[in-house]
Amino acid sequence: MITVLRIGHRIGRDKRITTHVALVARAFGANKILIDTLDKKIEETLVSTCERFGGDFKIKTGVKPKKIIKEFNGTVAHLTMYGDELKSSIQKIDKKKDLLIIVGAEKVPPYIYEDAEYNISVGNQPHSEVAALALFLDKFSDGKWLNKEFYGKIKILPSNKGKKVVSNE
Amino acid sequence: MITVLRIGHRIGRDKRITTHVALVARAFGANKILIDTLDKKIEETLVSTCERFGGDFKIKTGVKPKKIIKEFNGTVAHLTMYGDELKSSIQKIDKKKDLLIIVGAEKVPPYIYEDAEYNISVGNQPHSEVAALALFLDKFSDGKWLNKEFYGKIKILPSNKGKKVVSNE
Repeated sequence: MITVLRIGHRIGRDKRITTHVALVARAFGANKILIDTLDKKIEETLVSTCERFGGDFKIKTGVKPKKIIKEFNGTVAHLTMYGDELKSSIQKIDKKKDLLIIVGAEKVPPYIYEDAEYNISVGNQPHSEVAALALFLDKFSDGKWLNKEFYGKIKILPSNKGKKVVSNE
Repeated sequence: MITVLRIGHRIGRDKRITTHVALVARAFGANKILIDTLDKKIEETLVSTCERFGGDFKIKTGVKPKKIIKEFNGTVAHLTMYGDELKSSIQKIDKKKDLLIIVGAEKVPPYIYEDAEYNISVGNQPHSEVAALALFLDKFSDGKWLNKEFYGKIKILPSNKGKKVVSNE
């Protein structure tokens, strides 16, 4: 099971970025997202997405990161531009264990770097936690996220022109 | 040369998402980003990033998308959750030609779907234009973006613990 822990979320300012982080977590095969700051709006957005597009993705906001990390039974990996190389880091992670992926906003407290078994970079240039999470999950799953079936009310079919939407509503 | 065209940017609301799109474009090997709405703050952020972290990435805001697309001499690809499969689409694109990648915000006018030679999806689930652009550029470059040298004043070295920053300032 893969859980994403989003830390440093500020209501208002980070609303859209954190929503994208959560949607990426769901689309790229994570099972759950935990967000430090209580934010019912983001919870509603994700519940609504799951209702329409399917999947059993879970969201919880207003959690205590220190407690989550301390009590997590599995591997803790933190995505950061200061981290170690993506490919070699992924090879070291035991895929039989549950995985907690920590994704920060602008400022990340030092204890995160210490408590994470792996600090992993998706390139060492500044870019985006949304992109970092997507790339990490793509490589970690060896591209298998693309085959996941969501069994939603709405399903979009690949198409080069026009929108092909199958509705089971 | 790879140019990213960001459309539907709304000052304020989209500031952080569009900044992430631009930073991803730079970090994952695109050469330039064009943004429809004039936004000097995002220009300043990217110019400042390039000054510190290097690279010859260009940014221009306040452009006319229709004109850009019409006059573009190369391949036009639009990233959308309604598009065709990523892998097979990338195989069809002539890599010798210049590439214009269109990345929309929430609403994309219908002419974009028509005018783009390729409408490409990074999975058909809702997620994020930031993630879609990163995944597309990763696959399009066959992972080679990671080898790009930026020759910046600041360079971050991979590290599992602590921050390794080399400063040439």
